Amino acid sequence: MNKWVYNFGAGTAEGDASQKNILGGKGANLAEMNNIGVPVPPGLTITTEVCNYYYDNHQEYPKELNDQLNLALQNIEKITGVKFGDSKSPLLLSVRSGARASMPGMMDTVLNLGLNDITVEALANKSGDERFAFDSYRRFIQMYGDVVLGIDSLEFEEIIENQKEIDNIILDTEVSAHSWKLITTKFKALVKEKTGNIFPQNPIEQLWGSISAVFNSWMNQRAITYRKLNDIPQSWGTAVNVQAMVFGNMGDDCCTGVAFTRNPSTGENSYYGEYLINAQGEDVVAGIRTPQNLTIKEKEEQNSESLSMEESIPQIYKELVNIFKKLEAHYLDMQDIEFTVQKNKLWILQTRSGKRTTTAAVKIAVEMQKEGLISKQVAISRVDPLGLDQLLHPTLDPHADKEIISRGLPASPGAASGRVVFNSEKAVEMSKNGEEVILVRMETSPEDIHGMHAARGILTSRGGMTSHAAVVARGMGRACVAGAGDILIDHENNKFSVGDMVVNSGDIITIDGSLGEVIKGEVPTIMPELSKNFSELMQWADQYRKLNVRANAETPIDVKTAIEFGAEGIGLCRTEHMFFDNERILAVREMIFSDTMEERRKALEKIFPMQKNDFIEIFKLMKQLPVTIRLLDPPLHEFLPKEKEELEELADLLGSDITHIRSRSLQLEEQNPMLGHRGCRLGVTFPEIYEMQVRSIFESSIEVSKSLNIEIKPEIMIPLIISEKEFIYFKNLVENIAKNIEQEYGELPKYLIGTMVELPRAALNADSIASHADFFSFGTNDLTQTTLGISRDDCSKFLPDYIDNNILDNDPFISIDLNGVGKLVSNAVKDGLKSNKNVKLGICGEHGGDPKSIDFFHNIGLDYVSCSPYRVPIARLAAAQARIKNK
Amino acid sequence: MNKWVYNFGAGTAEGDASQKNILGGKGANLAEMNNIGVPVPPGLTITTEVCNYYYDNHQEYPKELNDQLNLALQNIEKITGVKFGDSKSPLLLSVRSGARASMPGMMDTVLNLGLNDITVEALANKSGDERFAFDSYRRFIQMYGDVVLGIDSLEFEEIIENQKEIDNIILDTEVSAHSWKLITTKFKALVKEKTGNIFPQNPIEQLWGSISAVFNSWMNQRAITYRKLNDIPQSWGTAVNVQAMVFGNMGDDCCTGVAFTRNPSTGENSYYGEYLINAQGEDVVAGIRTPQNLTIKEKEEQNSESLSMEESIPQIYKELVNIFKKLEAHYLDMQDIEFTVQKNKLWILQTRSGKRTTTAAVKIAVEMQKEGLISKQVAISRVDPLGLDQLLHPTLDPHADKEIISRGLPASPGAASGRVVFNSEKAVEMSKNGEEVILVRMETSPEDIHGMHAARGILTSRGGMTSHAAVVARGMGRACVAGAGDILIDHENNKFSVGDMVVNSGDIITIDGSLGEVIKGEVPTIMPELSKNFSELMQWADQYRKLNVRANAETPIDVKTAIEFGAEGIGLCRTEHMFFDNERILAVREMIFSDTMEERRKALEKIFPMQKNDFIEIFKLMKQLPVTIRLLDPPLHEFLPKEKEELEELADLLGSDITHIRSRSLQLEEQNPMLGHRGCRLGVTFPEIYEMQVRSIFESSIEVSKSLNIEIKPEIMIPLIISEKEFIYFKNLVENIAKNIEQEYGELPKYLIGTMVELPRAALNADSIASHADFFSFGTNDLTQTTLGISRDDCSKFLPDYIDNNILDNDPFISIDLNGVGKLVSNAVKDGLKSNKNVKLGICGEHGGDPKSIDFFHNIGLDYVSCSPYRVPIARLAAAQARIKNK
Repeated sequence: MNKWVYNFGAGTAEGDASQKNILGGKGANLAEMNNIGVPVPPGLTITTEVCNYYYDNHQEYPKELNDQLNLALQNIEKITGVKFGDSKSPLLLSVRSGARASMPGMMDTVLNLGLNDITVEALANKSGDERFAFDSYRRFIQMYGDVVLGIDSLEFEEIIENQKEIDNIILDTEVSAHSWKLITTKFKALVKEKTGNIFPQNPIEQLWGSISAVFNSWMNQRAITYRKLNDIPQSWGTAVNVQAMVFGNMGDDCCTGVAFTRNPSTGENSYYGEYLINAQGEDVVAGIRTPQNLTIKEKEEQNSESLSMEESIPQIYKELVNIFKKLEAHYLDMQDIEFTVQKNKLWILQTRSGKRTTTAAVKIAVEMQKEGLISKQVAISRVDPLGLDQLLHPTLDPHADKEIISRGLPASPGAASGRVVFNSEKAVEMSKNGEEVILVRMETSPEDIHGMHAARGILTSRGGMTSHAAVVARGMGRACVAGAGDILIDHENNKFSVGDMVVNSGDIITIDGSLGEVIKGEVPTIMPELSKNFSELMQWADQYRKLNVRANAETPIDVKTAIEFGAEGIGLCRTEHMFFDNERILAVREMIFSDTMEERRKALEKIFPMQKNDFIEIFKLMKQLPVTIRLLDPPLHEFLPKEKEELEELADLLGSDITHIRSRSLQLEEQNPMLGHRGCRLGVTFPEIYEMQVRSIFESSIEVSKSLNIEIKPEIMIPLIISEKEFIYFKNLVENIAKNIEQEYGELPKYLIGTMVELPRAALNADSIASHADFFSFGTNDLTQTTLGISRDDCSKFLPDYIDNNILDNDPFISIDLNGVGKLVSNAVKDGLKSNKNVKLGICGEHGGDPKSIDFFHNIGLDYVSCSPYRVPIARLAAAQARIKNK
Repeated sequence: MNKWVYNFGAGTAEGDASQKNILGGKGANLAEMNNIGVPVPPGLTITTEVCNYYYDNHQEYPKELNDQLNLALQNIEKITGVKFGDSKSPLLLSVRSGARASMPGMMDTVLNLGLNDITVEALANKSGDERFAFDSYRRFIQMYGDVVLGIDSLEFEEIIENQKEIDNIILDTEVSAHSWKLITTKFKALVKEKTGNIFPQNPIEQLWGSISAVFNSWMNQRAITYRKLNDIPQSWGTAVNVQAMVFGNMGDDCCTGVAFTRNPSTGENSYYGEYLINAQGEDVVAGIRTPQNLTIKEKEEQNSESLSMEESIPQIYKELVNIFKKLEAHYLDMQDIEFTVQKNKLWILQTRSGKRTTTAAVKIAVEMQKEGLISKQVAISRVDPLGLDQLLHPTLDPHADKEIISRGLPASPGAASGRVVFNSEKAVEMSKNGEEVILVRMETSPEDIHGMHAARGILTSRGGMTSHAAVVARGMGRACVAGAGDILIDHENNKFSVGDMVVNSGDIITIDGSLGEVIKGEVPTIMPELSKNFSELMQWADQYRKLNVRANAETPIDVKTAIEFGAEGIGLCRTEHMFFDNERILAVREMIFSDTMEERRKALEKIFPMQKNDFIEIFKLMKQLPVTIRLLDPPLHEFLPKEKEELEELADLLGSDITHIRSRSLQLEEQNPMLGHRGCRLGVTFPEIYEMQVRSIFESSIEVSKSLNIEIKPEIMIPLIISEKEFIYFKNLVENIAKNIEQEYGELPKYLIGTMVELPRAALNADSIASHADFFSFGTNDLTQTTLGISRDDCSKFLPDYIDNNILDNDPFISIDLNGVGKLVSNAVKDGLKSNKNVKLGICGEHGGDPKSIDFFHNIGLDYVSCSPYRVPIARLAAAQARIKNK
């Protein structure tokens, strides 16, 4: 027979902390606290398996549940000595949700269950406090009415407000016992009116109603959204915890409070919390009365005038502190604890690992390790790698007001304010004049690189998490909100609108790239500082991780950032980014418009010294660290101007007429540039471009090697390879240039040659390609686009629907799609190593900075991941966690 | 020790006809003819393996070759009784190439080898004909000079012309012995001047020079191109045949000729050929003298006045006819035979299967079967399926003159003339007025369907073999030349130009879609007629093939064509093609511009009855044959107008303003529509569209089932699936509608539901998807695009370079890419059958009509292929051949 219900109370429990999967987090900890002697009101947990059963069986319960529940209830009655529904000494219950992962506030709770017209009198008698009894009863009706019967809470509030008006009072605490009684009657009438039935008087009916309400709340919209945002599978279900009520509102010898064993905001090792005398839990949350501090220290720091708990009830505070110590020592983590004092008796209602800021997480983890509580490995695992973004980018002041006007994707973390501009030239111009600007575009293209660099942040109305804007912004460390679809940009009139609101060029907006928010006006931001604890944690991570971490970078500033953040090489140097410089773009365009190979070579000769100098700068910075240079990748039309004036300017400069330039531009346009004339296909049709690039790599590496007296061995990467023959073609091209260089320089340049594996066909032919290649770098962005047939620039129109409808578990451009792209990659790794056991394996797609994907890359045995410089610390930490987790 | 050289002569041979791989076609047949008693000049064959050795070893020969060659030469000397290089009675040799597959005229030949200043005198003495001897010598020098020494043949011709001027004569036959002698001297001087060496006098040196020249000619440009066009692998190599010379030019008792055992043009069973008295082989080819007919019949048919061979040398003619019979009976195929008569002695120089037109191929195959010569299976294998296109489409009159102005891809077979128009509306309008038009577009889009239908042919300047224009044209049976890249279209001025030539709207051009030619003016065409032989052959094919053949069709006319051509079902009915009808497109656009689901439903209600009627028509035509209907696939922006006026018209009709319409259109645009918001992604975001389609399928199938009293079971196909969950989502959608239909019609509609497998991720998840699907249809067009990352609309800029550089073996959009797409498809078949052994497997990409791909599809065990209606006969024949070949 299945066990659907677990008992706990009086120092024993059927479950323990290890059973979170079936008892939920709260239930498992309630059981555990019993086991270790922490005072917890007795109760029972209905397992998460009941939740799944309930949803798998048209919202019916397993037939054994009723008996098991009754038995467990009897156990509570035995411990408390009172009986559920008893007219003299009634047991009152709380009913709370408790999922495997904490989902605070997402689901429903019912308190004071068991009260009815008879038991309320018994409660009044027993407590000697009629006001308390009827206040409890009205709270119960209100909660039950809302949660179980679906009556809007406001309707109850209105009744209270009316009564208070009649009584001419303001605060709930001023309401008399008599008025609460009156209100109770009116509440019951409201229930009758709304539901057609009287308010249920049978406690067992109340209990079942509340249990079902909690299970139903698993599928409410809030909960679904929360799960989606936090990657919690629906199949986990929630448990339901039923506990004997304890009351913090039975008089001034009662109180209720919330505490953290360490400061969740700073991580400081001192107790932190607040309590309210004569109150129930929800009063703390409701914020009607201002809670008092727990400790004298806090009180002083906050200049509070109310007594701290440490002062007001020092004996109980001492008991509480002992429990803090016990729980932290037991759970070996900072705890978030709810407690209630009923008539000077302390009860712990909940303990769980406390949520914390990343700053706090880092500090707590490092300090706990030093305190000897946890190992380095555990410390490493305690910090969410993605949270590190908070430490690396400015964030909005959490206390500032903000008027959110639109939402998009949180495409590149950080927050920024600035004046709206609609084109890159303007962005550059205004930023030169010292203005801070936010570049607003439908979408960005490589042409916008300089505008993006000049801007504090980028906002686009189209595109996904790996759209051009998002990728480049992350690389540069600029805040970016992408794909804010309700923004209508009117380029002609230099404005954008969202609904009725119009924002003109020059108006100030703020974007929060960590949350995807677009905010009106300026919001103050906070600049982060990297702590010693952070450095220490990262050092530990480096000790444990097996994956190397490189950065995707090409400009000297990005390369420097990458080194600062601990990158161990460059995994992707995109040479085309170097082509957009104002001084070079013209030569590039000249090259594109060349009719003959000779003309093209002439234009390339102009680019050559600049390109060579790029590499010299990079090699000087990177020294012996590996640098993987990808030869030209984007289709040539990306380098062409789009605007009429620019086209005219180009025609002038090339001594050609505008019609010719325009028709040539048109000829270069493509239906699906992603699948077009790009990557090494350019090297097949225009080998002279690749020859120029390879030559500049060789000359620069030899020259820097000599001047610094080190050995530089660049890694030349051929993009978009689909076959063995294609790779051999380029290997020969590179070898021939190496031979020419040998004749000129007297030495054969040292290099590795490898390829991006970014198309399914390359992955499917990894064995034959690997037999000629020194390395593979998985280009998971393009591999995701082609494997799933989803353009990252166009997916914002349907991908959200896919995730909302549960058709895809997550955005495949953020975390690698294990069942599609993952299969191709892991098979390619196996096949590649089979034919060449020395082939070096890396990944340079956006997934290189995603912790979940890094876990996968670790497991399939890659040598390194490469990500944008600002993601390097995240990748280092995630790589260490992957190693620890999969040991 | 390797055997590099094979002897033959005097009725015995070391090789035979089965050894084409190492002896080449010519060498194997020379050996075989010896074995069966046909008189062949004795000789030797140097194997194709020597060719491969030669290219694998820096053009050096295996060391044993010299000895083996000498031994074989001695054998020839023994048989002929003359010695190579002998000053009295010299053996003369011919040196000819001979590849495994016939490559006529592609490689080099040297005749009369062994002549030098001494042996020429011996030849003169022996033949008693000094003129003949020196004519032979000068021919040898000229050929050797050209082929071995690389001297332009024209330089030799010039010497001859000068001499003839001096002698005041016109024809070569008039040149005297003396003059030939003079010419010989001058030839030798030319060689000295050009090469710095005297003309080689040593016959052995001559022989090695010629052998190397033949091997070198394997890699000349002509041969490389021919191999590419005919899919002959380079690794096959060529053999070299060295034979004792026989002379057809030793006097009037000599002749030389070419004959076919049946008419290669019509297939008629009568000898066909021509001969020249007192001539060498190349004189027949050179066309200086008009050859005479072989038979009296031919002579009479051609009203020729010269004597036929049958009349002039009846005895030898009789001998020849006996050999014809012997060879055809032996090879069981129509033979193409070269012969020479030297001094009344008949020699056969070559026999091979004769090239023939498709008409002839069909007639010969069917008749030979009836004559009991070959089996039905062999008959089936004798006809090239691709050739059937010739029988199904009009072709250009081969005797007409044509001025080719441009070339593109032969995208859809057939020839057509008409007036040039540049837009589809104009095409429709002019064709209504009875004009024949050729639609000329940069590229076509679904909007052009009606224009394409109205046109006789389509010419595009962009796009590949599977571009929209190509695919649709083939489906409609319209001629199409695609991607004629040198055509510059000037839409504004309604003209196009190629180089300096300008073609205006209304000018007449002709396109040959079988050859990819664009021709100025009108060229007469020939309409084909389907013969009884053709039908018979197709019936045989149907008996043997295992693959079913369906058609891709959606209009009643296409469906009728498909049935006529023997389609056994519709494998792909593209519902979106039905949306472009003039009457519907507006409702479609209204639907697209709807802001709410209600508005969208209203617009869909207008489309519903039309869509339902489409299916009624199709079901009535197809009756019980299966019909696979694909739900809406293209991105919605394909349905929007592009031109300003059309946009304005639309704004008017929708009661909206043009700015709104334009900005909405802009919002719908995509960077990479191929990877965008299309396929079943439309069904996720706008389920009401798919609901309308499914409902119309169900209602129509039930109604037609009832009215015809048959059981119609439509196959509903969900496009662009990437995951199991996605498929289940649509399966549920379809099931729900089926249940609604049941309530309205009192019966559950019968149907199958399946999916296109057209993205790598679908193929990689075939197991899980198949467990829910009734059928898979591999969409190899899109699967090729995504697996290789190549857009079929953009590939014309680089794919030719890939094929030229041997990086790809062939166009992956024509024949399936075995190493990439093929791997995905065959694994998906295996995985799919593993989880659902009843899953029906088909393919509906363009590859469904390609014989090479059909062979693959047969081998991996698909149930059917589906192709455009005009390809159905090709597929039927190819499927039979695949079965026979792989038995």
